[in-house]
Amino acid sequence: MSELKKVRVAVVGASGYSGEELVRLLLGHPGVELVAVTSRQYAGRTVGQVFPRFGHWGRARELRFEEPDARRLAELADVVFLALPHGVAAEFARPLLESGRVVIDLSTDFRLRDAAVYEEFYGHAHPAPELLSQAVYGLPELYRERLRGARLVAAPGCYPTSILLPLVPLLRAGLIESDGIVVNSLSGVSGAGRKAELEYLFCECAESLRAYGVPKHRHLSEIEQELSLAAGRRVVIRFTPHLVPVRRGILTTVVARPTAGLGTAGEVFALTGRIEACYRAAYGDEPFVRVLDDKGLPDTKNVVGTNVCEIGWRLDPRTGHVVVVSAEDNLLKGASGQAVQCMNLVCGFAETTGLM
Amino acid sequence: MSELKKVRVAVVGASGYSGEELVRLLLGHPGVELVAVTSRQYAGRTVGQVFPRFGHWGRARELRFEEPDARRLAELADVVFLALPHGVAAEFARPLLESGRVVIDLSTDFRLRDAAVYEEFYGHAHPAPELLSQAVYGLPELYRERLRGARLVAAPGCYPTSILLPLVPLLRAGLIESDGIVVNSLSGVSGAGRKAELEYLFCECAESLRAYGVPKHRHLSEIEQELSLAAGRRVVIRFTPHLVPVRRGILTTVVARPTAGLGTAGEVFALTGRIEACYRAAYGDEPFVRVLDDKGLPDTKNVVGTNVCEIGWRLDPRTGHVVVVSAEDNLLKGASGQAVQCMNLVCGFAETTGLM
Amino acid sequence: MSELKKVRVAVVGASGYSGEELVRLLLGHPGVELVAVTSRQYAGRTVGQVFPRFGHWGRARELRFEEPDARRLAELADVVFLALPHGVAAEFARPLLESGRVVIDLSTDFRLRDAAVYEEFYGHAHPAPELLSQAVYGLPELYRERLRGARLVAAPGCYPTSILLPLVPLLRAGLIESDGIVVNSLSGVSGAGRKAELEYLFCECAESLRAYGVPKHRHLSEIEQELSLAAGRRVVIRFTPHLVPVRRGILTTVVARPTAGLGTAGEVFALTGRIEACYRAAYGDEPFVRVLDDKGLPDTKNVVGTNVCEIGWRLDPRTGHVVVVSAEDNLLKGASGQAVQCMNLVCGFAETTGLM
Amino acid sequence: MSELKKVRVAVVGASGYSGEELVRLLLGHPGVELVAVTSRQYAGRTVGQVFPRFGHWGRARELRFEEPDARRLAELADVVFLALPHGVAAEFARPLLESGRVVIDLSTDFRLRDAAVYEEFYGHAHPAPELLSQAVYGLPELYRERLRGARLVAAPGCYPTSILLPLVPLLRAGLIESDGIVVNSLSGVSGAGRKAELEYLFCECAESLRAYGVPKHRHLSEIEQELSLAAGRRVVIRFTPHLVPVRRGILTTVVARPTAGLGTAGEVFALTGRIEACYRAAYGDEPFVRVLDDKGLPDTKNVVGTNVCEIGWRLDPRTGHVVVVSAEDNLLKGASGQAVQCMNLVCGFAETTGLM
Repeated sequence: MSELKKVRVAVVGASGYSGEELVRLLLGHPGVELVAVTSRQYAGRTVGQVFPRFGHWGRARELRFEEPDARRLAELADVVFLALPHGVAAEFARPLLESGRVVIDLSTDFRLRDAAVYEEFYGHAHPAPELLSQAVYGLPELYRERLRGARLVAAPGCYPTSILLPLVPLLRAGLIESDGIVVNSLSGVSGAGRKAELEYLFCECAESLRAYGVPKHRHLSEIEQELSLAAGRRVVIRFTPHLVPVRRGILTTVVARPTAGLGTAGEVFALTGRIEACYRAAYGDEPFVRVLDDKGLPDTKNVVGTNVCEIGWRLDPRTGHVVVVSAEDNLLKGASGQAVQCMNLVCGFAETTGLM
Repeated sequence: MSELKKVRVAVVGASGYSGEELVRLLLGHPGVELVAVTSRQYAGRTVGQVFPRFGHWGRARELRFEEPDARRLAELADVVFLALPHGVAAEFARPLLESGRVVIDLSTDFRLRDAAVYEEFYGHAHPAPELLSQAVYGLPELYRERLRGARLVAAPGCYPTSILLPLVPLLRAGLIESDGIVVNSLSGVSGAGRKAELEYLFCECAESLRAYGVPKHRHLSEIEQELSLAAGRRVVIRFTPHLVPVRRGILTTVVARPTAGLGTAGEVFALTGRIEACYRAAYGDEPFVRVLDDKGLPDTKNVVGTNVCEIGWRLDPRTGHVVVVSAEDNLLKGASGQAVQCMNLVCGFAETTGLM
Repeated sequence: MSELKKVRVAVVGASGYSGEELVRLLLGHPGVELVAVTSRQYAGRTVGQVFPRFGHWGRARELRFEEPDARRLAELADVVFLALPHGVAAEFARPLLESGRVVIDLSTDFRLRDAAVYEEFYGHAHPAPELLSQAVYGLPELYRERLRGARLVAAPGCYPTSILLPLVPLLRAGLIESDGIVVNSLSGVSGAGRKAELEYLFCECAESLRAYGVPKHRHLSEIEQELSLAAGRRVVIRFTPHLVPVRRGILTTVVARPTAGLGTAGEVFALTGRIEACYRAAYGDEPFVRVLDDKGLPDTKNVVGTNVCEIGWRLDPRTGHVVVVSAEDNLLKGASGQAVQCMNLVCGFAETTGLM
Repeated sequence: MSELKKVRVAVVGASGYSGEELVRLLLGHPGVELVAVTSRQYAGRTVGQVFPRFGHWGRARELRFEEPDARRLAELADVVFLALPHGVAAEFARPLLESGRVVIDLSTDFRLRDAAVYEEFYGHAHPAPELLSQAVYGLPELYRERLRGARLVAAPGCYPTSILLPLVPLLRAGLIESDGIVVNSLSGVSGAGRKAELEYLFCECAESLRAYGVPKHRHLSEIEQELSLAAGRRVVIRFTPHLVPVRRGILTTVVARPTAGLGTAGEVFALTGRIEACYRAAYGDEPFVRVLDDKGLPDTKNVVGTNVCEIGWRLDPRTGHVVVVSAEDNLLKGASGQAVQCMNLVCGFAETTGLM
């Protein structure tokens, strides 16, 4: 696909927080012509009316939300992003794929390789198991080459991205044990979506800290699938998500046991070097992963508004553990930014186009 | 000590956030006459001028901050609270104790039984090692009887309280393994004190999530001391504190491995019953510890402004772990409320006096 | 009514933010037995389950929400608080009053003396115009004596309280012109109630500042009624309410023109003295109004959690105006605290009972 | 100046919040080579170390803060931005101007035409009165043509921008009276700068609403200067700034009296049309001013992160007034974005370059 001819793109289910970011990024993308955005709720209104933050220039003033219609989208667009609830996304994807369109799905419908795991975690049979084999997990840092030729991209969610990016290189390199990993994540409220529910009201969230989704959060299924692939053996983690009063951002803290000892200063020095080298090899050239040196720890305010995942880590010789912390914008690297990064790979654009 | 004759109380170093809460509680305490509050910074000003939230009635309008002077305080007061930096507190405590006064110290100076551990974690020799043996750790739920006769109370900090209350009963009862415990805590910004430092500015904290104090936070020394006493063997934990944008509150999430298996529904049922019974035995009659039933998880907004520590827990049969979450107000149950609760025991008041 | 025999109290519509505060205050009130709380939504659940902040002790553990039933409440209770939407409240009040019960209404239904004004501002005919003449406007600082014998109290809302308390004494004393008054108020989000609506989600309110209800907010009707009574002539104000990201609190800023000149230092000195004297006469003995001296300006964080309205003011000789600022907790002095203050007057309790 | 040859730009005093935004914008500006940034505090550190949000790519990784040295900057740069305290800025500007450099000053030093007014409001003699006559007030919507040839630009502050943009067209067109204007502004905490002071700590600002700077805020001097020029007569306003807990953003609410009557529906209709036409004429082609139609009111969250000032308004026939509300990002349209917009005019770039 040439950069001269713009890719025609549509977004289905564009009225939530991820949808808003997706539309914003696509409107600013030099290789994209945004041909359609759909929303049952806002059909007939312009992007500018629904998203006053950025909807007042150029195309956004004209473009109107429409009712979702797979057949029409297959005619209009080369690439269709799906920002729909799980279950619904798969049904929408099938006709688009059959029409030869590229589908980039932000739901969980195509992230699992095994339909049985989907059923275990989501409580109903997978709506399109025959499509799973062609889906590529949309984490470019792990699956860049496969994404280049993909027709169906399963863009991962915010928790998986924040957990996989710090852990996969260490597991692949055998630097940490694959069992006993404990993960705590703190999520901003936009992670819950744009839903009018009591528990996400300002007065219920401000000055509130809470854990939720304990002990079996649905995203564990894809997280453990990818960690297991990285480790070469089944990985099961203890994961506790928390809701904290920021609008955007996820901070993830991982505690793991190195395979090497930390009993002497020499061992600490050696492992420090090996972890540094491991991350440098994995991410030294990555535009959207930033590994802090040993003194720094991530802060979500440094990544919110960007497509960057920041990683910091510390050895704890006293307990013989390593602590790794990651920070990302849950709506960008944790959702829409990453989906656009995948599109760039699929369509042959430079990977950072529209994301800097 | 009779409730008819009021106890004369002084607070040294009363101008921080904990000091403010302490003064507020003591002014409202029916058995207390607040005879002196000290602050180098605010000497000469009334409590009402410095703390406009509550300082406009009765005694608060008259009472003026004064320069700290141990001799004078020993004359004026029966009980002296110290809200001073570590190191300074011990020097202040000595003459007061020699004069026969009761000292309730909110610093870390008297929380450790072993001066060598103090030196390891605080980087300097303990300023008054000879006093350590008479100090009682001020966690009433663990040391109620010893507190009744105490002359020197070492009131624990916010992190230790939020970690010890959920863990000690399980360790004492042998329901969880003493190794491999992972603790993550989220602290409101008031935990950093009332210090004019850049990193605690509104614009640096709002919309910010960060880990800090990794891997060897100073409070680990007292936490591990008390956990080890509960377990009957040396306990070392992996602890990561985080700073999150709430004014008050700590949420602590503990992941631990039960000693019993969770492989069958029967085992899960049995352990559920044993943990329920364990917490009921430990806290069923406690006025300031609230154990939620199996469906509830704590939320700091439900405890901020109270002296209550809320505890919730879930078994995770999938990974064979138990997750325990606690929530408290870091300035009340995590500092000043608890110190007043200790005073109530020392002075023979009903334990909840002035705290409901 | 003697303090020995407790007053039996019921709260109708108790599940919102004001209702929550009302139940909390009444549970702690030494002269009250809370006999019933109603909520269609939560009928059958205990107060402790619905309000975990304070619902874990004593009566709150037993008391269950029930369906509202005026006849039953008339049997059970001496005093009934109505925390219902306008229109509904009046219908509920009628049978209670006919049964000889005291009604303290937190809605707008009985605040206006003139049913025609109600219809103008609320868009429908008043549901019980025959009751208006017996209602007493529940601002104790203005109507204390009439409240002592009242059977129907119309407790004012948060905006009116924050505007009337600073302005009425100045108008009564003729110190400011009654025309040209401009009022801006900033309200915390709890002022919008506990409604699951998109615009009050955390992500829509945090980092958001907005005006709303321009130009004819419904509460203007009662505000101007009371200002007109104070001035002895028709007063019309320019009022702009704003929504700002705090949970609780209202800050109101008034700009008005003194009747006396401010052209010389002598005139400024003279007016300063007259305003001080005016406020001292009006509020010097009031337990819940605090007038700051000339240097201080109110801050909502100093009054949130209390029943106090704080007032500060400055002369502006450059423009010949006076600026008056007030701060209150919108759920306490702006709603439930004030309603309890009224009940104390009606029932013969000391006015501060249960409110300190 | 051609766009082929990049303009060499330096920023003096770049370590505050405005400085941070300025450096970010200039690093992304296609016509700019950022040759130097100065900061006494951070001299020697890279931009990437001090501003981790954006400092990790390209030039930001190399560029180091240096000590400010006017002579060196005059050699290195064509355009120098000054983000310095008032008084200091003027001293720095003089040698740069003498060397033929363009100076864009973000302080208040060159905003007033009359040195006597400066002395009245700032309490000391103007440090460089001889330069005042060549300074151009940096509000492009008012002074576009003069800015094109300017050598010394006095970029206005956040309050003036948020007040002048809504008011100047109405005053110029004679649609509102020039006396009796009342202005209330709500400012985010970043407006106070990046200063380690107690009153701007998270715990002092979160859940706090307060007025300050009453009655004679320093910025009134430039606001009234520009309003008077627009009205053709001396304009004095009543202005009350407030501090509210958002990081960024200013919301300004103006109440003014139309010169035409609003007594009949016809008059309301006529004035509505005239105000619409007035704003359309003034801002219809402006890229950074957005006038909402009659139903919309501004919300800071829609403009934060952009260089846009949003304006909404309502007629109030009941009181015969007009209410105008504006919203802007105090660090962008209220400071650094506007300064870059000015630079674009001075240097002959398209006005929106680097700002979309």
